Amino acid sequence: MSKGTVVLAYSGGLDTSCILVWLKEQGYDVIAYLANIGQDEDFDAARKKAERLGAKKVFIEDLRAEFVEEFIWPSVQASAIYEDRYLLGTSIARPCIARRQVQIAQKECAQFVSHGATGKGNDQIRFELTCYALYPDVKVTPWSMDANLMHISHAPSDLYLMTKNPEQSPNTPDMLEMEFKSGKPIKVSHVTDGTTKDTPLEIFLYLNEVGGKHGVGRIDIVENRFIGMKSRGIYETPGGTILHHAHLDIEAFTMDREVRRIKQGLGIKFSELLYNGFWYSPECEYVRHCIAKSQENVEGKVQLSVFKGNVNILGRESPKSLYNEELVSMDVQGEYNPCDASGFIRINAVRCILRFNFVLSYRLRLPRCKGSV
Amino acid sequence: MSKGTVVLAYSGGLDTSCILVWLKEQGYDVIAYLANIGQDEDFDAARKKAERLGAKKVFIEDLRAEFVEEFIWPSVQASAIYEDRYLLGTSIARPCIARRQVQIAQKECAQFVSHGATGKGNDQIRFELTCYALYPDVKVTPWSMDANLMHISHAPSDLYLMTKNPEQSPNTPDMLEMEFKSGKPIKVSHVTDGTTKDTPLEIFLYLNEVGGKHGVGRIDIVENRFIGMKSRGIYETPGGTILHHAHLDIEAFTMDREVRRIKQGLGIKFSELLYNGFWYSPECEYVRHCIAKSQENVEGKVQLSVFKGNVNILGRESPKSLYNEELVSMDVQGEYNPCDASGFIRINAVRCILRFNFVLSYRLRLPRCKGSV
Amino acid sequence: MSKGTVVLAYSGGLDTSCILVWLKEQGYDVIAYLANIGQDEDFDAARKKAERLGAKKVFIEDLRAEFVEEFIWPSVQASAIYEDRYLLGTSIARPCIARRQVQIAQKECAQFVSHGATGKGNDQIRFELTCYALYPDVKVTPWSMDANLMHISHAPSDLYLMTKNPEQSPNTPDMLEMEFKSGKPIKVSHVTDGTTKDTPLEIFLYLNEVGGKHGVGRIDIVENRFIGMKSRGIYETPGGTILHHAHLDIEAFTMDREVRRIKQGLGIKFSELLYNGFWYSPECEYVRHCIAKSQENVEGKVQLSVFKGNVNILGRESPKSLYNEELVSMDVQGEYNPCDASGFIRINAVRCILRFNFVLSYRLRLPRCKGSV
Amino acid sequence: MSKGTVVLAYSGGLDTSCILVWLKEQGYDVIAYLANIGQDEDFDAARKKAERLGAKKVFIEDLRAEFVEEFIWPSVQASAIYEDRYLLGTSIARPCIARRQVQIAQKECAQFVSHGATGKGNDQIRFELTCYALYPDVKVTPWSMDANLMHISHAPSDLYLMTKNPEQSPNTPDMLEMEFKSGKPIKVSHVTDGTTKDTPLEIFLYLNEVGGKHGVGRIDIVENRFIGMKSRGIYETPGGTILHHAHLDIEAFTMDREVRRIKQGLGIKFSELLYNGFWYSPECEYVRHCIAKSQENVEGKVQLSVFKGNVNILGRESPKSLYNEELVSMDVQGEYNPCDASGFIRINAVRCILRFNFVLSYRLRLPRCKGSV
Repeated sequence: MSKGTVVLAYSGGLDTSCILVWLKEQGYDVIAYLANIGQDEDFDAARKKAERLGAKKVFIEDLRAEFVEEFIWPSVQASAIYEDRYLLGTSIARPCIARRQVQIAQKECAQFVSHGATGKGNDQIRFELTCYALYPDVKVTPWSMDANLMHISHAPSDLYLMTKNPEQSPNTPDMLEMEFKSGKPIKVSHVTDGTTKDTPLEIFLYLNEVGGKHGVGRIDIVENRFIGMKSRGIYETPGGTILHHAHLDIEAFTMDREVRRIKQGLGIKFSELLYNGFWYSPECEYVRHCIAKSQENVEGKVQLSVFKGNVNILGRESPKSLYNEELVSMDVQGEYNPCDASGFIRINAVRCILRFNFVLSYRLRLPRCKGSV
Repeated sequence: MSKGTVVLAYSGGLDTSCILVWLKEQGYDVIAYLANIGQDEDFDAARKKAERLGAKKVFIEDLRAEFVEEFIWPSVQASAIYEDRYLLGTSIARPCIARRQVQIAQKECAQFVSHGATGKGNDQIRFELTCYALYPDVKVTPWSMDANLMHISHAPSDLYLMTKNPEQSPNTPDMLEMEFKSGKPIKVSHVTDGTTKDTPLEIFLYLNEVGGKHGVGRIDIVENRFIGMKSRGIYETPGGTILHHAHLDIEAFTMDREVRRIKQGLGIKFSELLYNGFWYSPECEYVRHCIAKSQENVEGKVQLSVFKGNVNILGRESPKSLYNEELVSMDVQGEYNPCDASGFIRINAVRCILRFNFVLSYRLRLPRCKGSV
Repeated sequence: MSKGTVVLAYSGGLDTSCILVWLKEQGYDVIAYLANIGQDEDFDAARKKAERLGAKKVFIEDLRAEFVEEFIWPSVQASAIYEDRYLLGTSIARPCIARRQVQIAQKECAQFVSHGATGKGNDQIRFELTCYALYPDVKVTPWSMDANLMHISHAPSDLYLMTKNPEQSPNTPDMLEMEFKSGKPIKVSHVTDGTTKDTPLEIFLYLNEVGGKHGVGRIDIVENRFIGMKSRGIYETPGGTILHHAHLDIEAFTMDREVRRIKQGLGIKFSELLYNGFWYSPECEYVRHCIAKSQENVEGKVQLSVFKGNVNILGRESPKSLYNEELVSMDVQGEYNPCDASGFIRINAVRCILRFNFVLSYRLRLPRCKGSV
Repeated sequence: MSKGTVVLAYSGGLDTSCILVWLKEQGYDVIAYLANIGQDEDFDAARKKAERLGAKKVFIEDLRAEFVEEFIWPSVQASAIYEDRYLLGTSIARPCIARRQVQIAQKECAQFVSHGATGKGNDQIRFELTCYALYPDVKVTPWSMDANLMHISHAPSDLYLMTKNPEQSPNTPDMLEMEFKSGKPIKVSHVTDGTTKDTPLEIFLYLNEVGGKHGVGRIDIVENRFIGMKSRGIYETPGGTILHHAHLDIEAFTMDREVRRIKQGLGIKFSELLYNGFWYSPECEYVRHCIAKSQENVEGKVQLSVFKGNVNILGRESPKSLYNEELVSMDVQGEYNPCDASGFIRINAVRCILRFNFVLSYRLRLPRCKGSV
């Protein structure tokens, strides 16, 4: 008599294979679910392995396009970056993977979901918060301690899979032109060889390829995890890094200064929510709406070069530019002159004068000049 | 009969030479003041030129050490960066230069100060706000329109004076170790050749040298100026860029996550104040105090490589690390287990469940599974 | 030969009458414009006076409904309050008045607008920023110094026009029920006498009447003006104060905690922008959009009493409540137990333990207990 | 054989008496600890009851002075208020009570602490976070479900213990003068009867008395608890409410506008930390330092009346006032004139013109005036 059905986020690796077997032994029916979010994986071999280990069904789901469009693009719009350095690649993937997992669980009338994320990692939180938010009645099954111990035995031999070492990368740059509309990439062109990509998935794969070739987007950081301790993280985000720089540039070119300041604060909030697993929270939904609104005029083209780990902005153009020289000279010029600046300065200085005049008078007791003035 | 004495911020160049002559013609006595903040300049030649043009006195002041210690170090502590990209080199120099200028004016009983900054630039604001804050009775003399027009005729031929083009920079990295105490650099060592610097000015000059050699810290951006329009800025900040990355790393390693978040907000505020010329304002003084307080435990060493425009962090160590593994396992381990994470997640999920349950129940009307559960 | 046409914001009082005459003397054609935003004024007398003083045309415009719907309602949604105390009544009126003034100027092909706001007041800024934003080519005419001096001679005899002194106010409270939808008031009912109002203007006038009767909404504060100095302000906002409290309550009842926190920050920003005259700025437009979005579920009824200067909330109900007890017990209860709270606490404690453990170990050197544990 | 010693936070009431007995039955030695933070309690009777129920020792600790000085005063400085309405009285008491409890536990070599706070309340979190932060090795003992159930059976008959109903409160106001130094109350005087108090505890007790007499500081709110659900709270904070208003006023009078803005943000952060139980966290310690720094010049006297639930500010004076009229006219006047305001406005208008000019030109297509201009 089955205890019920579990949808297991299956990777094909040792950890989740152990969990699959262990769940069977505990008396559960297991549906193996493997998400394709662009990782380098033999999906057919994984399917066969899951079936051999006793999975009742196996779902292999290509989530790449929805991952790019629904999760990466909003993060690019937000200039999402955690603690000033981490572009949040891993964090973004979790809600995308878990969302499909609960959709399968609901369709298959499974009461349980399971995953291989360890207790101390952020990934447990990101996974489980998404599951509870979207399918409140779901139960998350406990995971095997053995699997966790095995997990620890993995050597970090797979460091830097996507990017070349800049010391070995090509000695000539690639020049790209990125085109944005509403703050989202809509096209990338290689300036020299004419390669052009214009669907979200193709654009992102191509930027990963070019960025990876030139060693772009490697970082080695200590980060503050949600549960309170610090951990070291080594990440590579080649395409995301190119997009981050290109988007920052076109945004600065087309967005009002003060709107940008407010949006910057919202982007920091968004990054924390994303890192901490709160994609499917009321506040993250709200922040995404506000950020998307700010992007309405973020439109235009950015020219850049990619070389030896660097993304260098070379220029930008936009029909929505607030840097439109003709407009500035035609309509504004007449209203502005150097005297305005002086008035502006004097008004702003009032508070400072009050403050430092106190200091001068009462603390430093500087002599005031005497004489003809 | 003199109209009074003007202390002129003199650069030795065409603009301020014109202003000097013009001020003499208007009937003022002129004291030429030239600040050495590390620029490449023939100070003797400038002195002779000023005297030849009729300056009553010439002050050439070496402000390099105080510029590094009192202005650059606090900016490093703050991780000061404007609009996510600009390290604020020019902005930082203005209050330092203007402070000495008003000190000279007060000592020499001059009622006027003058400068060559143009009406549309941020520099006018940075300069004048400092003057009024520190010497409220001072008068800022008007500047010559001709000088401004001449200024426009300058060609940007002096782009990128400090940094090599990464395409021409060396093919082998330099490895450095930066040491920090209270968030300030106290020593830099070259790992291979043993070079060591341990005074603020020497540290900064050395980092400029190494960074410049490897093409670190060039940016080409569109920025939002204080007075409301956008302008293009091309900057190079080799030493500042190395310090920025090294400090970010040791700070993340030694500072509590939530303190860091609060300090990050203060750093953004500080950067805006600095850019806009408000160094000598009550709020900037307050923010500097709060940021300095946050740095008390930011202490330790960061190893990094500098190569082809990149600053790569290789490792870090600190006696104040919150990443102390022994401490974590000894005192905290017993208090923590995977079940804690589950409780934590379920509590955090309550708000999300409420939110998306509404959606599920009332909007989507998804069928709930029936059966034995 | 006329120098052109000026649209003058005319109050009927001494100041703006002087300006009208002075503008005529300077050679301008003058269109007098008088906005009815609910002040106690004999508009017919003002029209005749303006005509007698030489106005070419007189526009008397009833802006009350648009003032309530387009300006007051968004401020209620934002919980707009300046420096924690001032409900911004005066500030809100300026962009509403100035908007119609430039519409008249554009329709009448007038190149100039004028107003009686003094140089040191915030009102000059609020007025002129709106004019420039909506009609960039407009010229603001200078105002007469005499008018300003006369203005000073006004005695503050008209303090507290709208509200009774609570010491003289009734000894029995009035009970009201306020109904909100999307964060906007849609109905007010008097619980005892059955009075009901359901259009924006009627609701607001009725709340002013009830609040005024009970001495609600008087404040005497020192505020920080935009131009840098402090000034004393004595304000009365009877209806606005009732709305502020009622809206705070229904919002807390229906809005997620973390969404509320983000919205609170946006509301503070909105209040500063409003106070400083930036209603028609890109950032204020953006913030208004974001705040309106947050209000989608702010819906329900609040019962309150008004008495002796107090607004006391008695209860609230909402179909969108996140306080829905049935929902909570049905769907969430199962997921939550006291052990979850313990896990939650232990995870949150990790950072604190790290911090104060340092203190205990290294600074206080407290003896650790020995024994059987 | 004892399982060890528990320090129990004992109230003398039914709940904690049950816990005391239950702990004894489980085999623990129990030390009863009763904190006097100003509640109305028969401490002698409580001591006898605890001894009768089997407590090994009983500690009755008068924490009133340290509660006022170390916990209430910093909250007044911060203008601490949760979700715009709640003055946080209950929240502030927890870290004060728990701190002494762990001090007793450490002195008595007790390995356990216990409390009667229920699982769903914020108080469990506030209590336990403090215990873990200050005494990481401590164990918190589980509490009895029965005790929780009994807790639920308490009727809310003790609502509004401290404050009179404003409908029954006196018909004449009391006038007070509050004196502050460094943002802390140092003296209160009754203007009419000459009563004066000048120690922290006496000041606070006296303000509670006067505020309570006039029905000040009652609120009935729905608040967002830390664990994610909303709950209704009915609070009375008579003395705290008077202090909140008086401090807001003297702060606005003596603090720079922009410093105040930054401090306002820190105060909101402080309030959240306090509500959520994080008094002894690194970030709360940091925020308290920054807030205290901002208070250095918050000094002077505030006159106010207390009447029928209202606190009305009547006036203020300060030697540190930034409203010093003599100073303003003497030093600043010369630097300021109405033209400065115009320059200031035009500079600020540039962004707005750019924005709405787009709108005008492209969306509204308003006709531009033709003619002689």
